[in-house]
Amino acid sequence: MTKKLKLGVIGAGRIGRIHAENLSFHIPGAQVEMISDVNLESAESAAREYHIPRAVKDYHDILDCKDIQAVVICSPTNTHAKMIEESSSRKMHIFCEKPIDLDVGTIKKALQAVKSSGVKFQVGFNRRFDPNFSRAAKWVGEGKIGTPHIVRITSRDPAPPPVEYLKVSGGMFLDMTIHDFDMARYLTGEEIVEVSAAGGCLVNPEIGNAGDIDTAVVTMRYKSGALCVIDNSRKAVYGYDQRAEVFGSKGCITCSNNTPSNTGIWDENGQRKEPFLFFFLERYKEAYVAEMKEFVDCVQNDKTPSVGGIDGLKSVILGLAAQKSLKEKRIVRVEGEAIL
Amino acid sequence: MTKKLKLGVIGAGRIGRIHAENLSFHIPGAQVEMISDVNLESAESAAREYHIPRAVKDYHDILDCKDIQAVVICSPTNTHAKMIEESSSRKMHIFCEKPIDLDVGTIKKALQAVKSSGVKFQVGFNRRFDPNFSRAAKWVGEGKIGTPHIVRITSRDPAPPPVEYLKVSGGMFLDMTIHDFDMARYLTGEEIVEVSAAGGCLVNPEIGNAGDIDTAVVTMRYKSGALCVIDNSRKAVYGYDQRAEVFGSKGCITCSNNTPSNTGIWDENGQRKEPFLFFFLERYKEAYVAEMKEFVDCVQNDKTPSVGGIDGLKSVILGLAAQKSLKEKRIVRVEGEAIL
Amino acid sequence: MTKKLKLGVIGAGRIGRIHAENLSFHIPGAQVEMISDVNLESAESAAREYHIPRAVKDYHDILDCKDIQAVVICSPTNTHAKMIEESSSRKMHIFCEKPIDLDVGTIKKALQAVKSSGVKFQVGFNRRFDPNFSRAAKWVGEGKIGTPHIVRITSRDPAPPPVEYLKVSGGMFLDMTIHDFDMARYLTGEEIVEVSAAGGCLVNPEIGNAGDIDTAVVTMRYKSGALCVIDNSRKAVYGYDQRAEVFGSKGCITCSNNTPSNTGIWDENGQRKEPFLFFFLERYKEAYVAEMKEFVDCVQNDKTPSVGGIDGLKSVILGLAAQKSLKEKRIVRVEGEAIL
Amino acid sequence: MTKKLKLGVIGAGRIGRIHAENLSFHIPGAQVEMISDVNLESAESAAREYHIPRAVKDYHDILDCKDIQAVVICSPTNTHAKMIEESSSRKMHIFCEKPIDLDVGTIKKALQAVKSSGVKFQVGFNRRFDPNFSRAAKWVGEGKIGTPHIVRITSRDPAPPPVEYLKVSGGMFLDMTIHDFDMARYLTGEEIVEVSAAGGCLVNPEIGNAGDIDTAVVTMRYKSGALCVIDNSRKAVYGYDQRAEVFGSKGCITCSNNTPSNTGIWDENGQRKEPFLFFFLERYKEAYVAEMKEFVDCVQNDKTPSVGGIDGLKSVILGLAAQKSLKEKRIVRVEGEAIL
Repeated sequence: MTKKLKLGVIGAGRIGRIHAENLSFHIPGAQVEMISDVNLESAESAAREYHIPRAVKDYHDILDCKDIQAVVICSPTNTHAKMIEESSSRKMHIFCEKPIDLDVGTIKKALQAVKSSGVKFQVGFNRRFDPNFSRAAKWVGEGKIGTPHIVRITSRDPAPPPVEYLKVSGGMFLDMTIHDFDMARYLTGEEIVEVSAAGGCLVNPEIGNAGDIDTAVVTMRYKSGALCVIDNSRKAVYGYDQRAEVFGSKGCITCSNNTPSNTGIWDENGQRKEPFLFFFLERYKEAYVAEMKEFVDCVQNDKTPSVGGIDGLKSVILGLAAQKSLKEKRIVRVEGEAIL
Repeated sequence: MTKKLKLGVIGAGRIGRIHAENLSFHIPGAQVEMISDVNLESAESAAREYHIPRAVKDYHDILDCKDIQAVVICSPTNTHAKMIEESSSRKMHIFCEKPIDLDVGTIKKALQAVKSSGVKFQVGFNRRFDPNFSRAAKWVGEGKIGTPHIVRITSRDPAPPPVEYLKVSGGMFLDMTIHDFDMARYLTGEEIVEVSAAGGCLVNPEIGNAGDIDTAVVTMRYKSGALCVIDNSRKAVYGYDQRAEVFGSKGCITCSNNTPSNTGIWDENGQRKEPFLFFFLERYKEAYVAEMKEFVDCVQNDKTPSVGGIDGLKSVILGLAAQKSLKEKRIVRVEGEAIL
Repeated sequence: MTKKLKLGVIGAGRIGRIHAENLSFHIPGAQVEMISDVNLESAESAAREYHIPRAVKDYHDILDCKDIQAVVICSPTNTHAKMIEESSSRKMHIFCEKPIDLDVGTIKKALQAVKSSGVKFQVGFNRRFDPNFSRAAKWVGEGKIGTPHIVRITSRDPAPPPVEYLKVSGGMFLDMTIHDFDMARYLTGEEIVEVSAAGGCLVNPEIGNAGDIDTAVVTMRYKSGALCVIDNSRKAVYGYDQRAEVFGSKGCITCSNNTPSNTGIWDENGQRKEPFLFFFLERYKEAYVAEMKEFVDCVQNDKTPSVGGIDGLKSVILGLAAQKSLKEKRIVRVEGEAIL
Repeated sequence: MTKKLKLGVIGAGRIGRIHAENLSFHIPGAQVEMISDVNLESAESAAREYHIPRAVKDYHDILDCKDIQAVVICSPTNTHAKMIEESSSRKMHIFCEKPIDLDVGTIKKALQAVKSSGVKFQVGFNRRFDPNFSRAAKWVGEGKIGTPHIVRITSRDPAPPPVEYLKVSGGMFLDMTIHDFDMARYLTGEEIVEVSAAGGCLVNPEIGNAGDIDTAVVTMRYKSGALCVIDNSRKAVYGYDQRAEVFGSKGCITCSNNTPSNTGIWDENGQRKEPFLFFFLERYKEAYVAEMKEFVDCVQNDKTPSVGGIDGLKSVILGLAAQKSLKEKRIVRVEGEAIL
């Protein structure tokens, strides 16, 4: 067997633990050597749970460990760029959670460091690894529905996060819709040139008081002229709603929601099927494993990750354009930037 | 326009009214001239409702009316054979509800009269005209699923009829399953050679006390060796359950249930769709019109109805074989009879 | 039985024939006495086919016939307003196809005439009578999904009409999307206050050369703040695509497409179900009968049609706003007009 | 963390490798210490692939290893009973693939040894751990559909195994239907008292020449009077078909097939969805992990496996009864045996 890839996980919050668990138990070719968290107890409990030899407080212990070849960055957004630069300078391969940063200039600087160092870099757009969406993108690429004309993405969370979190999240477009911006590009492989956003606060007035929105419809135009429309809500009481549709000159591809089982009941009240999978942990369980498998594979076999820095950057650019459109009540043009 | 076909309807009960309404309002080429019922008031109310010029007590008034070219027999089963013979002798075309009779000899005699007279004769196996099943039969005939290996028919009523009715119905196999016996032959176009029945009284003990069953599974073998299995219940609380499946060497055709709409709700309890159409009036609404259109067309344009006397006879033979199998706990062989 | 309502049909084109057929054969309480068309032969062939006693060239023959109580206006759009005024002045009840006119002032004048005369007036928004959509609107009204937050309407035709037709159609928003504008109001019972449109010519460049578009996404805001998004295409190769979804605080209602049957095939290539019903004639067959039944019932029993002049007017106002938004690349505010 | 359970796997064929892989990579609390196969190379390649320290030819090396607490028996059926007895006498916990044996007496003797020794014993009825079926059984147990009246199980393989295999398989009822016999008992928690089988050779005449069948319908009666019907085929070209339905006094539970994704295409040929998961490796991937997790949990925490020796025995008894019924063309009564 190939030698195991040794990794360090930075951040032992919810998403850090997912990656730690997957790397430890579901990816035979990987081994997590160390996990760090500013809250040492968090790191220690994760280490115990996922059989990780060392738990530390300072992520520099990971960066400075000669044994570790790659880092998985799951710390708060405002720490990402610095860590990317530090990891790059140590020639450590990088998996970074989304968004890379909320500032375009900062992202570009970090990606420049990655580029110079030549390390592998993958961004955590896990939905690209979901079987429903990856199949859709593949079929579009194979021309099964001809030229895309309309892309529809529905993305609704089961419940909003705490208002305290929202205040530092960068706003719905950069925190939540960012996944859909990436999906819009992923499904057709085309770039977006125009963004127009409508939104409001319909779920919880406190969200509005905090300066954010909880419901939105974003319309975009691809370079080809095709249209894309995203609709978002922070609260779908029936569960996590993650659908997409690509309509083209020769047909239409649809991705429906997943359920825990294909078992249903027919009774006096009609036909019933189970609620959709509750939230991203359940819905994208497979996808989280698959994205990390790709990262491990890319590092071990010198391949380029399919979702890289440019994807992380573009999604932020679209999020910022949507914010502008919402504010100025007009279409915002996204210039084709010469990036990196 | 072609001259309208003038018909008389015998029997103003539930099924007689369906045919009267369809002929009067939904089949432009037909006109009901007279309706009869031993209960004259029933005939009169139907006449008012469906714009029929004459209501009579004695069906001979219909048979003796020179203006009327065809009769629709919807009276109790034990009157069918006599009416068929009388109509035949007057050269009146005949549409007869199922079953023709409960006695094989009586049926044969009636069909002999039909044959001698040369009139058109159609039996009321309305399900053959249902879009789901007719499409399935067509696709099987076109070889879309290769050679049939297993046919599955599910047929469950929403609620049992009154026990008083059951006592004179001929038993579940001749009253209810008879449609499924016909469906088994219709879906593959093949004849049955063996019948094996299991059944019991699970819905309502009074049905058992009346000597009948309310739940059954009937397994049959086609001449080709293919198998067919029917399951029946007198009480499906979720509505009329009418499904079929033909599994063959190259695939499987499935017919699902129909609902009043394709509208559904997703809420905290999961995904819900409407109950199935309640019972045969709703489920086979289109099919009742279609079968009568075929009858009118056959008479007007000298064609042979697709579902004839032999089909009426065969279904009764299978029903009787199922009764025998249930009683004797063994497979009953249905001899290929030289009929008519 | 109640005395039959006698009607005249103006226009023997496609839609005029649908209404003539339904009134003649599927609505027992109605009788078409006369049909007119500037092309007399068209009127005559329709009369033959639907058993209508008289065919005329000049619709004034209908208006002047003392026997006729109601007219069904199915002539070209630019003749509607004048006919509405003439019919009103003769105290004839009016069913008018959509759009009433392309000019807001002209519509208002016509509706004023209707109002003064006190005749019944119904606009041909047939989709409101479709079982899928009417159920959705009913459930929304009953609060089944709480407060609506996002309404999604997908409406795609199987193939574009001839370019010659498009040139006089008023443009996609007034010819095609107009139904969706009405649907947006119907599903929630709320008024729209903002319209923002994106569109392009992706299906056929000739449509663009004729100054029209063939693909569009329209985002609107209800008075309540809820959002609505419509997507349209003139060409869906898989059939007529007519879906809607109302997402609210307590759940989501979805309306799927209809198929000719519920029969499917599983074979080596996967699971297959039939294409959707081809176009509006098939998809809204029931709805056309139902809307005309309502009209006949309203006239006979002195009720107010559920879809009236104001609905015809509002849909045109929204169509014009969408045109403006598309041209000016900005959100267009629809003022709450004091109408009539 | 709890100390890992150390296991040995006997047999490195297809099913042995599945269990080895799951224990090694997907069950953190387990560790495979040794794998044996009469073909040493097979054992060695599995050891390499699943990171197992030792590969041996003779399974006694596993039984004699003091470090190993539990065995997973995946060798040919005719070796099971002996291994069960040997393992029991060494106080080793046992997971045994189905069927335990083809002879009722032999099974009873082996189970007696298990009982005397007090070791944990679990039989490999993996389907009980499938989310679709386990949910169905749970809902039946909770009374969601009232009293069961009809159970329908469809189980069709994508392709028959080699005829050479079939010759030593014990026949379709003991090799393939055995899973469905167990499912029949699992879904309702009730025992079967009557078995009636129909079958034939429709897929491949060579199977018939080898004395076996490839298509069957088995009807059974539960002690309560409820009916169960199983239909089987060795060849469903559209993929592995694994469905079940429990119909009862208050409703009906249905389990549909699973697909690789919920992505579909609508095009000119209609609506298409993916083929079902190909075969048991794909369909029951999760279930194989879940059953082994239960086994590990039962051993580590002194619980009784939910699927034990009695279940292994009963399924064989039903298989033998079906063989008898097929041969003698009559219903076979399964006596309620006083077992163990």
